[in-house]
Order: sequence, then structure tokens, then C-alpha cells
Amino acid sequence: MSDGISPISRLIRPRSVAVIGASADLAKTSGRPVAYLQKHGFAGAIYPVNPKAETIAGLRCYPDIGALPEAPDVAIVLLGAERAQAAVRELAARGCAAAIVLASGYAETGAQGQQRQRELLEAAGGMRLLGPNTIGLVNLTDGITLSASGALEADDLVAGGIAVVSQSGGILGSLLSRGAARGIGFSKLVSTSNEADLDLADFVDYLADDEATRVIALYMEGVRDVAKFRAAAAKARRAGKPLVVFKIGRSESGAQAAASHTGALAGADRMYDALFREVGAIRARDFSDLLDLPAALATGRRLGGRRVAILTSTGGAGTLVADSLGVAGFEAPPPDAATAELLRTLQADGPSVLDRNPIDVTLAGLQPQLLRRALGALLDSPGYDAVVVIVGSSALAMPDLVADAIRDCLPGTSKPVLAYVSPHAPAVAALLNGRGVPAFSAPESCTVALQGMLMQGGATPVNTVSTGAIVDLAGLPAQGSFDEVEAKSLFARFGVPGVREVAVRDARQAAEAAPALGEKVVLKILSRRITHKTEVGGVAVAVPASQVAARVARMHDDVATATGQAPEGYLVQEMVTGGTEMILGLHRDALGTALLIGMGGVTAELVGDTVLRMVPPGDALAREEAAAMLRELKTWPLLDGYRGRAPADVDALVDAIVAFSRMAGQLGARLETAEINPLFVLAKGQGVKAADGVVVLAGG
Amino acid sequence: MSDGISPISRLIRPRSVAVIGASADLAKTSGRPVAYLQKHGFAGAIYPVNPKAETIAGLRCYPDIGALPEAPDVAIVLLGAERAQAAVRELAARGCAAAIVLASGYAETGAQGQQRQRELLEAAGGMRLLGPNTIGLVNLTDGITLSASGALEADDLVAGGIAVVSQSGGILGSLLSRGAARGIGFSKLVSTSNEADLDLADFVDYLADDEATRVIALYMEGVRDVAKFRAAAAKARRAGKPLVVFKIGRSESGAQAAASHTGALAGADRMYDALFREVGAIRARDFSDLLDLPAALATGRRLGGRRVAILTSTGGAGTLVADSLGVAGFEAPPPDAATAELLRTLQADGPSVLDRNPIDVTLAGLQPQLLRRALGALLDSPGYDAVVVIVGSSALAMPDLVADAIRDCLPGTSKPVLAYVSPHAPAVAALLNGRGVPAFSAPESCTVALQGMLMQGGATPVNTVSTGAIVDLAGLPAQGSFDEVEAKSLFARFGVPGVREVAVRDARQAAEAAPALGEKVVLKILSRRITHKTEVGGVAVAVPASQVAARVARMHDDVATATGQAPEGYLVQEMVTGGTEMILGLHRDALGTALLIGMGGVTAELVGDTVLRMVPPGDALAREEAAAMLRELKTWPLLDGYRGRAPADVDALVDAIVAFSRMAGQLGARLETAEINPLFVLAKGQGVKAADGVVVLAGG
Repeated sequence: MSDGISPISRLIRPRSVAVIGASADLAKTSGRPVAYLQKHGFAGAIYPVNPKAETIAGLRCYPDIGALPEAPDVAIVLLGAERAQAAVRELAARGCAAAIVLASGYAETGAQGQQRQRELLEAAGGMRLLGPNTIGLVNLTDGITLSASGALEADDLVAGGIAVVSQSGGILGSLLSRGAARGIGFSKLVSTSNEADLDLADFVDYLADDEATRVIALYMEGVRDVAKFRAAAAKARRAGKPLVVFKIGRSESGAQAAASHTGALAGADRMYDALFREVGAIRARDFSDLLDLPAALATGRRLGGRRVAILTSTGGAGTLVADSLGVAGFEAPPPDAATAELLRTLQADGPSVLDRNPIDVTLAGLQPQLLRRALGALLDSPGYDAVVVIVGSSALAMPDLVADAIRDCLPGTSKPVLAYVSPHAPAVAALLNGRGVPAFSAPESCTVALQGMLMQGGATPVNTVSTGAIVDLAGLPAQGSFDEVEAKSLFARFGVPGVREVAVRDARQAAEAAPALGEKVVLKILSRRITHKTEVGGVAVAVPASQVAARVARMHDDVATATGQAPEGYLVQEMVTGGTEMILGLHRDALGTALLIGMGGVTAELVGDTVLRMVPPGDALAREEAAAMLRELKTWPLLDGYRGRAPADVDALVDAIVAFSRMAGQLGARLETAEINPLFVLAKGQGVKAADGVVVLAGG
Repeated sequence: MSDGISPISRLIRPRSVAVIGASADLAKTSGRPVAYLQKHGFAGAIYPVNPKAETIAGLRCYPDIGALPEAPDVAIVLLGAERAQAAVRELAARGCAAAIVLASGYAETGAQGQQRQRELLEAAGGMRLLGPNTIGLVNLTDGITLSASGALEADDLVAGGIAVVSQSGGILGSLLSRGAARGIGFSKLVSTSNEADLDLADFVDYLADDEATRVIALYMEGVRDVAKFRAAAAKARRAGKPLVVFKIGRSESGAQAAASHTGALAGADRMYDALFREVGAIRARDFSDLLDLPAALATGRRLGGRRVAILTSTGGAGTLVADSLGVAGFEAPPPDAATAELLRTLQADGPSVLDRNPIDVTLAGLQPQLLRRALGALLDSPGYDAVVVIVGSSALAMPDLVADAIRDCLPGTSKPVLAYVSPHAPAVAALLNGRGVPAFSAPESCTVALQGMLMQGGATPVNTVSTGAIVDLAGLPAQGSFDEVEAKSLFARFGVPGVREVAVRDARQAAEAAPALGEKVVLKILSRRITHKTEVGGVAVAVPASQVAARVARMHDDVATATGQAPEGYLVQEMVTGGTEMILGLHRDALGTALLIGMGGVTAELVGDTVLRMVPPGDALAREEAAAMLRELKTWPLLDGYRGRAPADVDALVDAIVAFSRMAGQLGARLETAEINPLFVLAKGQGVKAADGVVVLAGG
């Protein structure tokens, strides 16, 4: 029965579909799947199952699963939660490849529902399960609709290159109906919803191989299996299929009382950003971007630079697009002399103001032949990387001619060509999209689309190297919180040097140690228990050597008063002056381990100028990746000789970042938190020094 | 003829309209105005003027202006630029109140066109002029269309409370057609374009008095007459009519080589932000906001807090809206116990998960009566300030019933009620808008709308006081650049104290002065010519008193080498330690004078954490306004005792801000630039100290 075809392939391209609980009333939700299968031209066998009907929509209806003439590839289960489980068990026993369970009342409702969902999965046995609580899936490539989504009422669904995987059924319907109205073509749309079995990553994996799919759009609430998602995303990338993700949960508050600053600065949603950056996925900011970006990327055209020609026949709208592009760092340079001359010859009797961009060819809106030539001239110009055509109200009178004129220039160029439709004219936009010209009704969408096409041309996943030799960790704690000396010892073994320091037991030893460390020293308590030393009076800076003993004695009393316990010991450290204070940290959550780098100090903390990068399991960041992170900091110029400052030792800082990431790679899930704060970056050639450290290993 | 009615009133509500150059071919642009006047039911007299036609569209056509039976209230001039001027002169002579000139080829094309535009204005004499290069105006309140905009082809134009004034004709057409498709009603739409005479502010002034107008939306390229705009905006505000502005030019680069940091930090577009803030106008960020915000504000409902109930009958979409709201700082708390209980009784057989928000009443999408009751329960709840209703695909089958059910709850509450339409369903959105329920197809638009309704409830224009007593400026330069001593003397007279300092001529005098100023001092050259002292070696900090003479000698040589001239003198200043370094500046451009406050130092400079506020002419900022500015800084906690820091003397800083603004008020346009950088804010009770100063007065 299986012919060696995978169950997921049989789910998406079934030859036979059973509809369990199909209603003879096609207007009901439970009547829709059979009606839609017929409406959209499913060529395989449809087996409605319903003990109360003889026929449904002209098809023979079966009283129960046992009566089916064969094991169907797919069963759509329309029964309520209380009856779905038995049906799933029967279908599995019958040899069905996959069941789609629409019923709600499972994990989304609480503990009882979670139990019910576990039982459903168990009932499925070896059969694959989509859902529960799903709206199903739609395969427009092959005209197969396995869904009750009302969006399938539409007659104008267009097959195309965009696949959608959504963790919400309602969103799937929303995207399908919005795309259809805009003439945007889809390949497959899947709602994974509760993901009792098949999840987002399963379908990304499938779609990476799917010939009809050029771009994969994801509506995501969260990733269930991160390793599987990473692998699937990598496969899509190898296949040259961009991944565009709209992820909700952006307003979740981050870790509340983290042991380190890193945790608070990282936050749950920034970890997702880092994951998407790692795998080279593009994150959609606004919901509309989840259609706009794929529509642009499905053209397969890449943007080679930031110089955009805006061809307009209507005032205002061109300026609107230029302004939005300008805010995002694109340029709209005037045409070069040769191109301007060419445009001038095209419209001898028109206005001759061609020294600016937007390029206003007033007559072009009314003369498709002129539009075609002007567009060709701009696309041929070496001065432009892309063209945005402004479609004004003059196009409403002859939408086909205008759309054709724009379409005709596509074969002659690999540059992106987009359209901005200024009046309300959905039919014109649909014609353009249908002809391979992404058309938008928001100026900001043109900008987002070009940004996506630029990223796609230049984006790379996180640049990593293998972790190299295993560092020996003998003598360090195997779990739990490290004290400061242990933490910096760990960092030093991976290659991040610490400040010079001596651990002592009491005031006398401290006074003895101080003179060798400088005129003035830093004193701290040494403790595994107390991570926030400053708050309990456990830190003193710039203590003259002569006053060290007295200061330690006072610190003993202060800490004892604040914590109820005497410190276990003290640290006497050299006082670093000059240099730039930074924070270097590792934060781990369910998505993996991310490295965070940022300026230290309170000002930088308040403005949140930090950069996060996921460290893939078992890998370390490449030096170029570490250097790129630094350049993403707004405060990067502080390291780079800003306003006559001495350039910092960026090479040593890059080494430290790579070393920290190597530590993450070697320790993996064991390393819950690691942080250097502050890390002093000294002047060029003088290296870096870790002045404080936090490490927490799992367990303990 | 004039009946005491103002020309602008006669322009917007004419009883008679002449169309100069009307074409008998109604499909041509020059045929449209007559056709549209008839189509949209203009009840007054229409006089086509064209020597080549006897009748146009059934109306008697006149061979020339002289032949008209009366002086028309308005003339639409459709002639090209070369003939428009003569027609305008004749119309003025005839006693026409206002002419609308559509021709292009004027100031927008360069110097020659500017001359042509001046001649056109001169030809108009006492007659008012709209344009040239305008698409005209549309008065939907009275069904009067004085425009050639293709958007008037639509049959479904809805009269309503939103007025549009646009400096682009194409954008007017875009807004009109988009609004019409969404069921959004307009009162008047005017394209001012080249503004040879009537400008944006003239129409804001008129609309403030216009009964039909509830909100004024502006598409702005720039303000021509700032004083008139200020006055008009204030009038609209007094009339309770919100002003929503979309302003392009956001990507313009700021002042390139400003004499002060303030100029570079302020920038041309931030000055517009400050102007809008001053007059209480709301700035639209995305182009779509220019319809979405007015649509929400036209309801007249204000948002009293940030707690939003999201009522949904479709999964996913509610979460989408909740997430967007959450990012913007809104809350979506679960229903209180009484409300949850009430909801439970409404749908006895539905799912009972009512302890969360979005509130999922699955059956409500299918049962309008249930929707009506659930909505009523949420609006009655003291726990919510507004409700967003998610409209799912189930509404597509019975749009009227759903729209009516939502509409019915409006009379019982003053809270905002918005709708998010999840599937592509423009007809449903139009029905809702038509019934007074702002309906959006982007989740982010719901957020923008609620933000606007919140601002409208709480926004105030800049809080000012009169400048008070005039400060005596005798003895200070009357123009040009001040040296540092003069600058700080000016600041001190208004009440901002400077550091202790002594101006000296040479090294010997410097050495004599130093001991009285502390162990270590700051040395600087004193010069009106050199504003960037550091760059030429003219600043030394922390110089021990014993080394002052030698250091001044070296400074003399360094500066002479760098600039080719010996310094005019030197300053010996106390060295301030501790305190928080800030920058306090005034920046003036065509919009007026703005005050800028920000953290000093390079980190804050790189992250651009500054706040700008316009100082209205002749006024000074109120203390509350100055305090509010400080709290808008991201780095505000640094002044407020963050992490155990000593609280800064915020009272003294507020005094300094008010004093600086008073100086702006007194000096007005004479003051081009003033800046204190750094201004040291000392610990609470210890005041502030200006450590450096720049002043440039106009002239010289």
C-alpha cells in the first residue's frame, strides 16, 4: 500500500481520502471537506463515512471505517474530541497513512485536554497525525484540499511558489484568503496547530524537497523540537528556499530574576531572533510582511545593491516610496546622463525634468509602450539595482496593458522589479502579482520586500567552526555555581585572561597580597553562594594598599550583617584603569545557548545596546562572526578610535568571544549561565582582562 | 455677490462653478470636472467655458470668461500653464472668488517655473488661488466635486467626519479611493500642491470651524508659513478636532557641519516631530496610519487606560492582535470573575476556558445575539478600557447581522470598540466602518488606532509660561559667535550657573589663578574664532596647579601650529568631579527654536538618547514640561538613583532647562545656536554647573 512513499507525502498528495463524520449538509463545517475536495478538483477517491447517510454529494457514503473499500491514504476526522480517539485507533488499525483531526478540546484547554491529547497520539500508533485542533491542509499544486477552512469557498485560488506552515488554523485561512485576493499563488498550506505528532519542522523538511515550493512562510507560536527545526531549516537553505517567519510572543517578559545580567538582556524573544539569524531565516515584523516578503522572494530575484529607481506617472506616490526607502537606508539616485538622455528621447513632448528620482514620466501612465521603454532604460542602467514602478489611477482604465508592459521587461533582467499601487485597485495588484511582478499597496511593503531581497542575496547563517581541542576542566566544580576564582579559571582555560588577583582568607593575607598588585587594589568577597556581591557590601574599589586590612575587616562585618554569614574568603585584584568596559555572556534556554556581547556600564545597560548570537550545538563562532557582532553594536565606534580615542584591542576581544563560544560548544546543555562583567578591553596590543565572572553549571 | 462670505468658504461651498477649458469629451481629464460635478449631484450652476463647443454634457457652453452670465464663486482652470495666467487675470477682473489651477509646469520644475508661478499669483490679484499643479478639492459633505481626480469615478463615496488636506494631488486621490473602498467617510478633501496662495494652514483654519469635520488628516511635505500653521493647529485643537499628520522627508540628512552638537542631534525631521508635539498633532508613522488613525478618532471615543479585551471566535487572530498590543505596552488581562461568570452563562454548551484573554467565545461568531451579549458584558466590565472584536470567516456568511450586533453595543458605552477582520473581507470591513465601528485588516492598525485614542485622551500641547522679566544683556556681544566666557555669562544671567573660572592672557596669569580653583584644574584656550577647541589641542584636563604654566605654554604652541594663530587668551577652570554629564542646547531652523536635552558623553551620543521640545515664540517651557522631557530619556534612571547611585539634583536641572528656554523666548530669531556641553548635574541639593558654552547670534 505504501509503495515506499513516506506517510507525510501520502498526507500531502493522497490518492484516496476518507472523511470521517462527513455531513450531508454541505453548508455545515462537517460538510465542507467533501464539498471543497470536489470543488477544487480532487482526482482521487473520496470516501465519506457517516452511518446516517447513504450518499453525500453524489458519493457513496460508508457507515463506518471498517466498511471502507481500502485503507485510505488520509482520513479527515470531523468527530468531536470524545469520539475522535476511537476513530483514530480504527484508522490506524486499518492501515491509513495519516489522520487529520479537527476537533478542539485538547492541549489548548489545560491539563485534562493534555491527557486527552496524549491518548489520541497513543491511539494513532504508527499512523501519522496532523492536529488535533487543526483546520487541515491545502495542496494547491495538485488541487487537493484537506480542510474545512472557509477560505476555500473562494473560486480564485492560485497555485504558486509560496508554502505556508501555520501553528494556527485561523491564520492559515487568513493568509489563504488574503493571498487569493491579491493574486498571490501558494503551493501548500498546512495548519499544524496542537502538533501532537507532526510539527512545523516536519513540513519545512518536506517542503525543502517540494518542487513547487520556492519560499516557505511560517506562522509560529513556538518551536517544539529545536534540533529538528534547525535541521529542517538548514535543509531548506541548502535547497535555496528562503524561510520567512512571523513569530508571536514578542511581548513576553524576559527572565525575571536571572542569576546574570545576560539572562535579563537576552530575553525569550531575542533568543528566537538569534535562532532565526542562526539558520538564516528572515523574521517578518508586521503580519502583512508574512505575505509581502514571500511574494517578493518567490520571484527568485536578488537585490545586488541599494540603488533603486522609482518610475512614476503620478506625483506624491513616488515620493512616498522614496521616503520609506530612504528611512531604511536605500538610495534613490538620479539617472546617469546616458539614461536621462534616453528617457528624454522617449517622451519628446513631455516635461523634461529628468534629473531627479522618482523619475516622473507623466505620459507613461497612459502609454504602455512608453512605460515599457522607460522601464527598460532604467533596468539597463548600471546605476540602479532595482526598479519600483508606481501604478497610478491612469492604469485603472487599462490594467492588462499596464501589467503586460511591466511583465514584458522581466525576461531581460535579473534585477528586482516591484510595483506600488497608489489608488485602491486590488484587481490591478492581482494582475501584476499573477504576472510575476510583486505589487504592494503600502509604500512600506516595497521597502520590506527590497530588504528581504537584499538579505536573501547577502544573508548567511551564523559562521561557525568546530570547537577544536577539548579543554581539560579537571579541578573545577562539576556542577552548580562557581565562585569568582573558579569562574575566571574556567574562562582562562578557554583563553580569556583574567585580572591579576590573589585569593585570601582574611584581612592579614589581603594586606600581604596587595602591594604586588598595584598602588590601589580592588577587594571583593569570594563566595559561591552570593552572586550579587555589590548589594551586600562585598566590593570595594581603589583601596590604597595601606588601607587593605582595615577595609577587609569592615567588609567582613558588612557582609555578615547583610547576609547573616561571614564571607568564605576574599579576593585582592589589580585595579584596571582605562580600557572599555564590556559584558560578555552566555544565556541558555530551550532554544539553545546564545552568546551576548555589549558595552558595560549603566548607560549602555539602560539603552540596551547588546548583540546576541546563537552558538550552534558543538560549534564555536568563527572569528569573522565575532567581529561582525561587534560592528552591529551602536557603540562600536567606541572600540574603533571614535573621536580620537585610542583604538581598542579588537583582535583580543574577538579572541575572547570565540573562546567563550568554544566553551559553550564544549559544555553544551551543562552550561546554564556564564558571564564576564566587566570585561576590560585595553588599548590595541594590550589584550582584554576579565574582572569578574559568573558560571552556573546544571545540577547542584 | 460676496454676501460677507469669505472667499475660502465660497471656494469650498460654491453656488456656481465655471470650468475654463472644459472638454466635451468627458473621458479626457479636461472633461472630468463637469462630468463629476453632475455625477455627484452638484446643485448649483455649472458654466463650461470652451470656444469650440456649444454645449457640454447638456449644459450651455460659454466661448470665454467675459461671456459668463455672472461672476462664478469658483473657476476650475484646466488650461495649460501658458494660457492659465491670462484666464486667471480675467477671472479676477470678473469678480470670481477663487480659482483652482490644475496646470503643472510651475515652481515644481525649477527657477523658470517659479517665475511663472509668481506671475500667476500676481495675475490673481485679490482673487484666491488653489494650486497650481493641484488636483482640486472635493466637498463630500455637500456633494460638490471641484476636481479631476480619477478617484471620483467611484460611485460609493461616503460623506463623513474626516477632512484631508494634502500637499500632493495624487495622494489625495489615493486616500479618497482607499477610504471609499473601506466605507470611511470624508467631509472635505483638498490638494494644496504648489501653494502659490492658499496653503495647508488656510484649510486647517477653515476646517476647525467646519461642522461636518471631526478629524483633520494632513499629508505634508513641509510647512510654508509656520506661524499660520501654529495658529491654525491651535484653533483646531480648541475646536476638539485632532490633527493627524503624515510628513515625508524623514530620510533627509540633518545639518551637516553644525557649529554645535545640538544641530546635528536635532535634525530637520526631529524639528517637525517637535513642532507636532508642540501643537498636539499626532504623527502617522506608516502611510496606512493616515487613514486608520482618523477613522478611529472620528468616533470621538477616547481611551481611558491600557486594558483591552479581545473577543474572538477564531483562533490565532486574537493572539495576533494581543501580541501587537503587548509590544506597544497595552495589557490584555483575563476577565474578572463576575464577567467570566456572565460569559459562561451565555454559552452553556460551549468551551468553558474563560480565564484568559483573548476571550474565545467560539459560538459567538455564528450567533449574533450571543456576540451582542458577550460584547456587552466586556464593555460593562470595569476591568476593560476598550474592546477589539475579532471578525472571523464565519461572519462572511452574514456580514450585516454581525456588523449590526457590534454596532448595537455602541450607545451603551463610551469605550472604544474596534474590529479586526481576519480573512480578506473588504465588504465586512466597509459595513463596520459605515456603522461607526473602525475596522482594520492589520493587527498593527488596531494598536495604532488605540494609541491614537489614548494620546487624544491625554495629549497636551507643550506646557509653557510667559518668559517673565526681561534679562539685561548689556555688555555682551550683539551678534556673532561668543567666546566661552561670554557664552557662560549669558547663561548665568538667565540663571544657569557656570563652573568657577578665571580668564587669563598668558601662562603666568594662569599659574597665579590656578591654586584658588583646586588641586587640579582644566585649561582651555579662549577664542571666538575656534569653536572646536579639543581638535586643535586647546583643552587640557586634570592639570596639577604646579604644572599649569608649562601646560599653557605647550597649549600655545599646539594651537598656533594647528590654526596658524596664537590663542587670544586662556581659561583656568575648576575641575568638576562626579555628577552626571549632560548636553543642553537650543537649535533654530525655519520651524522655530527647539530645546534639546540629553546625556553627555560619547556612549549617549552614539545611541542618540536626546529629547527635543519646541519653545514657542515668546514663551518659556513650564517646569512640568522640563521634568517630562527628562523622564522621556532612556537614561533618565541615571539621574534618579538607579542602582544605588546618588540621586542627581533634578530640581536644579529643571531650573536650567526652563532658564535656557526663557533665553530662547527672549532672544527669538536672533539666537541661532546655544549649547552647554557638558552641563554637570551634581548630587541632590548641589545644583548644576555649565562647564562649556557655545552661543551664536544672528548677524556678524
